[in-house]
Amino acid sequence: MEFPSKLIENAVGELAKLPGIGRKTALRLTLHLLKSETEATSALAEALAKMRFEITYCQTCHNISDTEECSICANKLRDHSLVCVVSDIRDVIAIENTGQYQGVYHVLGGVISPIEGIGPSDLHIDTLLTRIPESEIKEIILAISPTMEGDTTAFFLSRKLREFPDVHISTIARGIPMGGELEYADEITLGRSIVERTRQVK
Amino acid sequence: MEFPSKLIENAVGELAKLPGIGRKTALRLTLHLLKSETEATSALAEALAKMRFEITYCQTCHNISDTEECSICANKLRDHSLVCVVSDIRDVIAIENTGQYQGVYHVLGGVISPIEGIGPSDLHIDTLLTRIPESEIKEIILAISPTMEGDTTAFFLSRKLREFPDVHISTIARGIPMGGELEYADEITLGRSIVERTRQVK
Repeated sequence: MEFPSKLIENAVGELAKLPGIGRKTALRLTLHLLKSETEATSALAEALAKMRFEITYCQTCHNISDTEECSICANKLRDHSLVCVVSDIRDVIAIENTGQYQGVYHVLGGVISPIEGIGPSDLHIDTLLTRIPESEIKEIILAISPTMEGDTTAFFLSRKLREFPDVHISTIARGIPMGGELEYADEITLGRSIVERTRQVK
Repeated sequence: MEFPSKLIENAVGELAKLPGIGRKTALRLTLHLLKSETEATSALAEALAKMRFEITYCQTCHNISDTEECSICANKLRDHSLVCVVSDIRDVIAIENTGQYQGVYHVLGGVISPIEGIGPSDLHIDTLLTRIPESEIKEIILAISPTMEGDTTAFFLSRKLREFPDVHISTIARGIPMGGELEYADEITLGRSIVERTRQVK
């Protein structure tokens, strides 16, 4: 695709570097910005640059935060003895949106992936291990996606956490999703959902 | 969706204003930028702002251009007596990519759309009418999408162009697209493609 202007070409090229945005979409977005008022573009450019350069992370849980301690860690009403370990900030947002969790978090910043060259030392595992004796943590929930890399990370973590025999370790429940049909569930999920059945309260 | 940081919230909000990008996609893009190097974000922000603030349009054909006259209008090898009228810059790029057209363009900047409040005076129609006697234009090709608004615009233009009896007016050929199956073509297209059949050269 050839463009009549270098400026357009640069903008399209930069937008097309984003995941899931090809050159045609990038051109559509660029022409949309061109048609909108100039303020729209400057607001977007400023918001992106400000976000990238001024963002800080919570020193305790590595969640994104505008302050040294994130709003979740700073909240005294939350249960600080319960830590949910997730791989990504997106997972924090997803769990927070359920409104079902009252503990705090620990964001690993990824999962162990030898193919992508991500080892345990690239993740925030050390700070989790030092955090356990410092705060009085009673339970750690491993809420890591059940993929190959996620399971490896969870396995690595549970081995490391043997150092702390007083800390309970749990994983989020696996099973048939709400609204899911039994006949379409894969065998491993269905099998585990039978083995790990929950008793109904009478 | 609640975000742990105002900076993230602003970035997501601005990205989600773009067409076809919802809040989930905007969050994915934001977190992608956060994970990439800071240079990636500053390059994107700069490219967008520069594009929006420094862009200029060709004074002859209203195509995007880094100079007063776009590279197509400035090209003396092109046929300046043949003008292709399109609604959008995207159409110029699309036609240029075919490599089949050697004339010049005139970008209207939209189509007549009473619903969106776009009338003939909002489009670059006046400059087209003044351009015809100035340059020696022999033929005008109306290459406007065959939608309700596009057809209205083409009809309006062909009425206006009656002022110039020496100028031929043509429209791009309608018919079955290459690789298209006859049985799936809509009746109007198929009907017109039979009425306006082209004779094979023996």
